[in-house]
Parts: sequence; structure tokens; C-alpha cells
Amino acid sequence: MAGTDEAAAAVTAAVVDSFRGTPDPRLRELLQGLVRHLHGYVRELRPTIKEWEYAVEFLTAVGQKCDPTRQEFILLSDVLGISMLVETVNDQSGGTESTVLGPFHVVDSPSRVSGDNVDCIGAGTPCVVSLRVTSVDGGPLAGASVDVWQCNEDGFYDVQQPGIQPLGNGRGLFRTDDEGRLWFRTVVPSHYPIPTDGPVGRLLDTSKRHPYRPAHIHFIVAADGHRPLTTHIFVADSPYRDSDAVFAVKDSLVVDFPCVEDPGKADEYRVTTPFRMAEFDIVMVPERNDGGR
Amino acid sequence: MAGTDEAAAAVTAAVVDSFRGTPDPRLRELLQGLVRHLHGYVRELRPTIKEWEYAVEFLTAVGQKCDPTRQEFILLSDVLGISMLVETVNDQSGGTESTVLGPFHVVDSPSRVSGDNVDCIGAGTPCVVSLRVTSVDGGPLAGASVDVWQCNEDGFYDVQQPGIQPLGNGRGLFRTDDEGRLWFRTVVPSHYPIPTDGPVGRLLDTSKRHPYRPAHIHFIVAADGHRPLTTHIFVADSPYRDSDAVFAVKDSLVVDFPCVEDPGKADEYRVTTPFRMAEFDIVMVPERNDGGR
Repeated sequence: MAGTDEAAAAVTAAVVDSFRGTPDPRLRELLQGLVRHLHGYVRELRPTIKEWEYAVEFLTAVGQKCDPTRQEFILLSDVLGISMLVETVNDQSGGTESTVLGPFHVVDSPSRVSGDNVDCIGAGTPCVVSLRVTSVDGGPLAGASVDVWQCNEDGFYDVQQPGIQPLGNGRGLFRTDDEGRLWFRTVVPSHYPIPTDGPVGRLLDTSKRHPYRPAHIHFIVAADGHRPLTTHIFVADSPYRDSDAVFAVKDSLVVDFPCVEDPGKADEYRVTTPFRMAEFDIVMVPERNDGGR
Repeated sequence: MAGTDEAAAAVTAAVVDSFRGTPDPRLRELLQGLVRHLHGYVRELRPTIKEWEYAVEFLTAVGQKCDPTRQEFILLSDVLGISMLVETVNDQSGGTESTVLGPFHVVDSPSRVSGDNVDCIGAGTPCVVSLRVTSVDGGPLAGASVDVWQCNEDGFYDVQQPGIQPLGNGRGLFRTDDEGRLWFRTVVPSHYPIPTDGPVGRLLDTSKRHPYRPAHIHFIVAADGHRPLTTHIFVADSPYRDSDAVFAVKDSLVVDFPCVEDPGKADEYRVTTPFRMAEFDIVMVPERNDGGR
């Protein structure tokens, strides 16, 4: 029998070679690269048979935990920092920074118009979020779509509380006006634990990592001729800003949500005092001509 | 914004650091190593957001395809050569070589005694398999357990053909006699395609890889004081010996299954002529004192 290192190298070479006929050159590159890196892991860390069987069981459990409103594999990608790394290597300088999609973009947001309230419950501190969408040259982007989703004051998304929250609570699909502006009413989202009742929760528990994310509001922004943007804004005074369980905080996305007592402002935004107010400018990057990402 | 490479390195460092408190040092090593290698993949291949989303959907589909008799994640590990690589880095010289477990060891094998027929159907060319289990010093291992499973002449395992094959067909749990011997009657297994009706099948199809495995019989052998062995014997004249879809062939495991016409031999083994006959010696390695693999 050949030495183990030599035999291992032969296995890797055979597997890389098996993908040589993949017609799509990008898929071939991705698959052969995946084999090299995964085999590199096995050859360096030398998992035992039992350890590998455990890994297979774990991945199976992650897949089996998924359903139409629960995406445990995104959660796994998130807590391993892979989602954030993929965002990072695809980020293009000049515009608003991107961050992770997360696992809760699982239902369509109801269409709403500027000024609407995405909070259908009516409890919690009122909050106004005012956005302005521009291109990198500062020009306003009219008619840009902004998909918004967030958790409630207790840290739960609508899909996590069927019967308590109506589907669509905390969500809205808006369009910007001629000045690239839109605003909406909501409640201040809470920091929250990512779902811990599945295999990803067990992974965090076993490695003594906390499951919390700092408070944030999600956006997907799309404007003609510009690269789509998936990002959050983070509530500046939220706990866990420095230890987000999914590594998604970027300083440029941290926004103050000051308390407003001015009755005139409250009337303007159709809320009661005191309320909180966040303002954020979203800068979109024009599409490249190479087909984009 | 920091340069992308610098920002990417910062993400990796943060994720590796997040596992620093993992109490079990081996788990910590495995997780931190996994993060380094997976992040290395992302940083080298730079998958787009869409490509990564596709990967997450693929892994989800793999998990969702699993059920009590279908293990699509083992199949994925197999076709990426990871199962074989894990076997290879754990292989210990001196004994019979190991190979992959495969996805079909999903039901308990019925207890059988030497000379039994594991083929409950009665069609196909009769075959006798004669084994001898020894330790590395050549001493016979009495009372060793040998778990056997194989597909039928059409290339299907029992669990793939409910209603056609009874559960337990092609399977048997045997013990060796005082000379370390056992034999059983069966049919010659066929080469076969791994299951192609799931995401792993689509992966092979997309990359123009064939799904076939050369004909083989699986064994798990256990003997007191020795390391357990998971292996196959391969039928020497089977197609696909040089391009096993799961990279599991080792030359030392390839066995001739000659045709026997001798009526005396047929009487001895309680079969009719012509029949085929395979003989194989299994050499077990004593357990190490460090807790084994």
C-alpha cells in the first residue's frame, strides 16, 4: 500500500480529474476548487470515520430542519461567516455596503406606499424610517424598489409567530418618489437570538457562542441600471453590536435612532410623541457591462 | 471601506475567533479548520451571491432527499471523493484496506450462519463467497462478526425495491468459526448506477460524470481487540473498475469470481453448476492503545 499522504493525494487528483468534462467552465472551476479545498480540510484535520459520520448526520439534520419558512442552511452559512464573506468578496466600493440576506426573506412583502405603517400590531414605541436612494453621482433614483423586513419589539419575525403576528407584519415593498425618497412607520426592532431549536442552535451551544444579533432592519434595493443591494441598517444603541452571531455588522450601516419629542414632527409623520426616527441614505452603484454579479 | 481582501481576511479572523471558547479542543480544531478552509474556498473562487444561493439551495435539497432508507448526503460525500479520502487518511497499514461505507447500510442485516444463502429470490447465477478472517500475525479470528450487504443481479439493493425484494435480501450478519472462516451463498452482484433521481444525480449529469459503480460486496468486520474494518470486495471482471463514481476501488480489494463447473464442489457448497466462487482473506489490525480511530 502506498504511503497515506501519497494515497490521499491520488484520491484528490482522481476527483478533480472526474470533473474535467463539466461543460460549463465556471461550474467546472467552482467544483474542482471545492474538491481541492474540502480535500485540503480532510488532509490537514484528518477527521476520523466517526467524526465524518457525525458531520454527515449534522448536515442531514440541517437540511431536514428546512421548510418553506425556515432556512437552516442559510443560518449555517451565516454562523460560519460564509454568507458575510460572500457578500464581502462581491462588495463593490462606491456605494452603500451590503450585508447578509439572512434566513427570513421567505415570504413576499406586501406592496406599500410611502408613509405606510409596516407594523400591523400597534404596540411598541413608534418609529419613523426615512430613506433616500441615490446613484453614486448623488442623483436621486426615482421608482427604485425597496423591500423592507424586520422583527418586532420582542425580536420575532412574522413567520416565527403564526397566530400572533399576521403574515406581512414588519414587511413592505416600497417605491421611491421623484426625489428618491420614501419613509415608513414601524416599531423599533429588537436584538434577538437566531433560531436555536435546530442543529445550528446546537452547534452554537456546543461551542459556547451566543446566538444574538443586534437590532436591525433589512433592505433589498433595486433601481434600473444599478446593481441590486442587499443590506441592513443597525440600531446604534443595540446590544450585541460588537458580537453579531452572523458577523454582519459594518460600521457604515450603524444608524442612530434618536428619540423625538417634537409634536410638529409627530404630526408630520402621523405618529405620537415620543417616537424614534432613523434617516439613512442608500447609494447605488451602476451596473457593470460584464453582466454584473 | 477597507480593501476587499483586507475586509475578507477580517471576516475570516472574526469567525475563527468566535470558536475560541469551544470547550472540546478537538471540536474547536475541527471547526476553526473548517472555517479556514471554507473561507479559503470563497476567497479564492469568489462565488457570486447567486452562485452561493444556488449552493445553499442544492445542500437543502440534498438534506430534504434523505429519509430512513435514502442517505443523499453520504452520496454527495461519496461522489466528491470525501468519503474515500476520510477512509484513506484513517487507513492503517498492515491489514486489509478499507473503503467507503456507502449509503445503503440503512437496515439491520438478518443474523445468518455460515453456509446460508443471502439471496432470498433464487434467480441469477449462484455464487459462493468464502472468507477467512485473521489477525496481522496470521492467527485466525474466531467469532468475528461479518456484516454483509450487496445488490442483486439487476444492481438494486433491497431498500430500493420494496415489494420486489424482501427487506434483508442480499444482507447477512455472520460469525466466523474456530478457524476464522465463514462462507455464504448469494448471486453475483451487478455494477449499478448510484441513485440519480436526486440532487446528487443532477450534479453528476450537469458535470457529465457517469453514475456507475463496479460490482462489489460490502463488509463490516469486527473482532475483539481489533480495529473495525469497513470494506468491499470488487468483482474483477466488472465494468467501471477504473472509473468508480465514488472512487472506492483499491487494487488489493479486486477479487476474481471464477466460474466453477465441478459437481463435487457444487455439492459441497449446496449449489448447482455452473456457479461462481470468490475467496478472500481479511486481515484485521490490533487496536491501538490510544482509543482507536
